Amino acid sequence: MPNAKQPELDNLIQLLSRLPSLGPKSAKRIALYLLKNKSNLMKPLSEAITHVHTNIIKCNVCGNLTSKESKCTCLDMKTDQICVVENIADMWALESTSVFKGQYHILGGTLSAINGSNPEDLLINSLVDRIKKCNIKEVILAISATIEGQTTAHYINDSLKNLNVKITKLAHGLPVGSEIEYLDDGTLFSAFKYRNSFNNKN
Amino acid sequence: MPNAKQPELDNLIQLLSRLPSLGPKSAKRIALYLLKNKSNLMKPLSEAITHVHTNIIKCNVCGNLTSKESKCTCLDMKTDQICVVENIADMWALESTSVFKGQYHILGGTLSAINGSNPEDLLINSLVDRIKKCNIKEVILAISATIEGQTTAHYINDSLKNLNVKITKLAHGLPVGSEIEYLDDGTLFSAFKYRNSFNNKN
Repeated sequence: MPNAKQPELDNLIQLLSRLPSLGPKSAKRIALYLLKNKSNLMKPLSEAITHVHTNIIKCNVCGNLTSKESKCTCLDMKTDQICVVENIADMWALESTSVFKGQYHILGGTLSAINGSNPEDLLINSLVDRIKKCNIKEVILAISATIEGQTTAHYINDSLKNLNVKITKLAHGLPVGSEIEYLDDGTLFSAFKYRNSFNNKN
Repeated sequence: MPNAKQPELDNLIQLLSRLPSLGPKSAKRIALYLLKNKSNLMKPLSEAITHVHTNIIKCNVCGNLTSKESKCTCLDMKTDQICVVENIADMWALESTSVFKGQYHILGGTLSAINGSNPEDLLINSLVDRIKKCNIKEVILAISATIEGQTTAHYINDSLKNLNVKITKLAHGLPVGSEIEYLDDGTLFSAFKYRNSFNNKN
């Protein structure tokens, strides 16, 4: 990275380049863009980061983000269904489809031997508590179709087996818009295995 | 953009998505990444932006960035050559090649009828002053090979015609690694017109 000669600017570029989807080139571009828009973007951005840093915390029960001042409403359930997801980005992706109006439970990751992520690192115990307290009837496991994701789903399924609760998972199959020719074996196998009636309205 | 339900977070995502090379998706990803790395990235980043915002200013003579406390050294010339560029990113690109060790003069853009950018919006008068004060012998115009860039180069050439100074421009021709088959007519025309001796060591 060329030396910008100003240590403050070098430091900013360095920090920006650590953000996901940014590299040294785009970090430099952003730093210069910020300097060009000092009053209408740079100042508001620094204030916004500070506000989020001080006011937004993670709820220890449901794993969602919540404001420090207002209590998280995760124990005031409106429905008897709960949707379990890996992280907030997954919840936002599901929310944008409007397919599920109920509440979410955010694990905070998946079990992973490689990353050393154990059951106690995820919000699994609090999921059990929440199911009991809120009288949940269905737990929807909306967890990625990766090895770690499926291991985590199986672990949760085991953890909930003594509770009187229905456990469902997202369907596997062809992504909408996909061409069979280009799909991998695993997806085709699942799509074939879980085939359903052509006139099935569900 | 899905509603994050926390106005502070929504505001941060909104501001991030206005940065170059970022869209709503990457802005969300960055906001979540920052929340995951509150102490080691989020706080330093907000401080770095504030520092750059308060300490870094643009020099009115050379157009380069300089610290508020230390005076810009653009009038203490070490060589009698000056390289004129459009913006700071261009200067950084040239600096990283180490092809030129002298000082730069940053115009702050190009002349453009479409964007309403006039000669007085660019640091052209201060270039003339700098050439006179610092006894410059060569002005290297390292300006983009676009219509606006070349218009600007011609305008500067005219502005300097009464000064006893050599004016040079970057060579036009084949980009290194390019295949002739895929190059545009303009580049091929220039490359042909400015062909030089095969054994020319310059």
